[in-house]
Amino acid sequence: MTNRHTPRNPAYVARVHASLASQPFMDRLIDAHAIRVEPGFVEVAAMLRPDLLQPGGHAHGTVLAALGDSAAGYAAQTLVTAAFDIVTVEFKINFLAPAFGPRVAARGRVLRAGRTLSACAAELVSIADDGAETAVAYLVTTMMAVPVHD
Amino acid sequence: MTNRHTPRNPAYVARVHASLASQPFMDRLIDAHAIRVEPGFVEVAAMLRPDLLQPGGHAHGTVLAALGDSAAGYAAQTLVTAAFDIVTVEFKINFLAPAFGPRVAARGRVLRAGRTLSACAAELVSIADDGAETAVAYLVTTMMAVPVHD
Amino acid sequence: MTNRHTPRNPAYVARVHASLASQPFMDRLIDAHAIRVEPGFVEVAAMLRPDLLQPGGHAHGTVLAALGDSAAGYAAQTLVTAAFDIVTVEFKINFLAPAFGPRVAARGRVLRAGRTLSACAAELVSIADDGAETAVAYLVTTMMAVPVHD
Amino acid sequence: MTNRHTPRNPAYVARVHASLASQPFMDRLIDAHAIRVEPGFVEVAAMLRPDLLQPGGHAHGTVLAALGDSAAGYAAQTLVTAAFDIVTVEFKINFLAPAFGPRVAARGRVLRAGRTLSACAAELVSIADDGAETAVAYLVTTMMAVPVHD
Repeated sequence: MTNRHTPRNPAYVARVHASLASQPFMDRLIDAHAIRVEPGFVEVAAMLRPDLLQPGGHAHGTVLAALGDSAAGYAAQTLVTAAFDIVTVEFKINFLAPAFGPRVAARGRVLRAGRTLSACAAELVSIADDGAETAVAYLVTTMMAVPVHD
Repeated sequence: MTNRHTPRNPAYVARVHASLASQPFMDRLIDAHAIRVEPGFVEVAAMLRPDLLQPGGHAHGTVLAALGDSAAGYAAQTLVTAAFDIVTVEFKINFLAPAFGPRVAARGRVLRAGRTLSACAAELVSIADDGAETAVAYLVTTMMAVPVHD
Repeated sequence: MTNRHTPRNPAYVARVHASLASQPFMDRLIDAHAIRVEPGFVEVAAMLRPDLLQPGGHAHGTVLAALGDSAAGYAAQTLVTAAFDIVTVEFKINFLAPAFGPRVAARGRVLRAGRTLSACAAELVSIADDGAETAVAYLVTTMMAVPVHD
Repeated sequence: MTNRHTPRNPAYVARVHASLASQPFMDRLIDAHAIRVEPGFVEVAAMLRPDLLQPGGHAHGTVLAALGDSAAGYAAQTLVTAAFDIVTVEFKINFLAPAFGPRVAARGRVLRAGRTLSACAAELVSIADDGAETAVAYLVTTMMAVPVHD
């Protein structure tokens, strides 16, 4: 799917990084980083620290959900003006395979950008040391643009 | 909905507590506790520490998802024999209102217990200091029973 | 869950019936009827004609989805003014058991009524000739209020 | 996403057509046709007859859900042996835009094919007389392989 989206906030890249850094849950507990920010597309990644793993050595599913929700939400964030924040109305996630890492990434894209609501999807992959990727989860979400509080 | 479920593992209560304690993500990062464990019903709760909050002072949505997924999964866990673990196939969560806490709880119940697959739901509430509750999210999930690894 | 909703359109019952009758898919193909309309709650039912069945003799899953989506949407419709229609943003449905009928009913209720968005759920039951009910599906949805076109 | 799936039933194309024809709901009420059947990918399409439309002239959402669920399920069907049927465990659908047709198509693909469970997605498009396509809905589903009844 070609990316044909147009950003409406010239500072959209900085906005995504600042927002992610402002969320202690994503920034400190998950230690997530936005490693690619384009109009309508954001990739968020994290290293699977031991405390993010299940006893079997793979990521807790909610860690994948957190990354996917972030990537999808920030994908929507790239397409709104500076006057709007993006909040998650709902999301659903299917788990496809255990994520052993050591790195996981969520690639979020906007399926449809509306004035108020956007639909987004995120593919979650587990990335081995040699760069080999495994699809581990798939998330679809409804995002809402809400005016920024002053 | 009356609870008419029958546990198939006499040690189902201990099993839920042991499993939750074995998950660093739930036990340490979220600091979640199973505060009610009945056949087909489990309540999991946590205090909203500052690092679980968004800048606006309410819980990060994924914290609610983690609690809801746990409560729903453990509700299914109460109904299988000791030979089976429960894994999440997929879940979906609708966010209803900001969760300001200071405490949040997820009440998970089994909608239908199958031999392999179970459908579960969890209601998420935010609980104020005076005990007043606000519905903050609603989660539905598909759980699968898988043989315990030896 | 007690029903504490207040209708904002005095003619909300007539509105639901008129809307259902205006949809050929629900009215003619499914032959669905709103058999209970209360503030924040609507029950929609249908007889399982042979052409709504799968080869195994149970309802095609989409028939259940149609009834559940309608019941949930009309539950939301009861809580908005005459100036607004309700449209489905998204729904998800878990299938719990085959619906052999001969009658199926969807009981939709509003989980949270917002100004723009509402979250609703619908329980689907199959009803035997003797009135015995089987839970067959569970649907959760996001509904949006949109101004009525003149 | 490149299609790297291998069919396990040499007659998988005939199987999909036969199954669709055996469902009165899809075959007669929706009048759906499988217009492309490949390993792990199936496209199902229908003309939007007037009785499949809402008063506004666009498809009833459930029609899109029916096509998407079929396309996704048959995509999974192409990857199992003749001994198995595919049943829908759950699906979720996001509506992106009104589908005015006159033709709609669902393109279903397998995200992950498991022994028992498969995750699939379907993109729904509305197709104008000049062939122009509009994305109208997006569906993700969990499918289960069950032994064929003799």
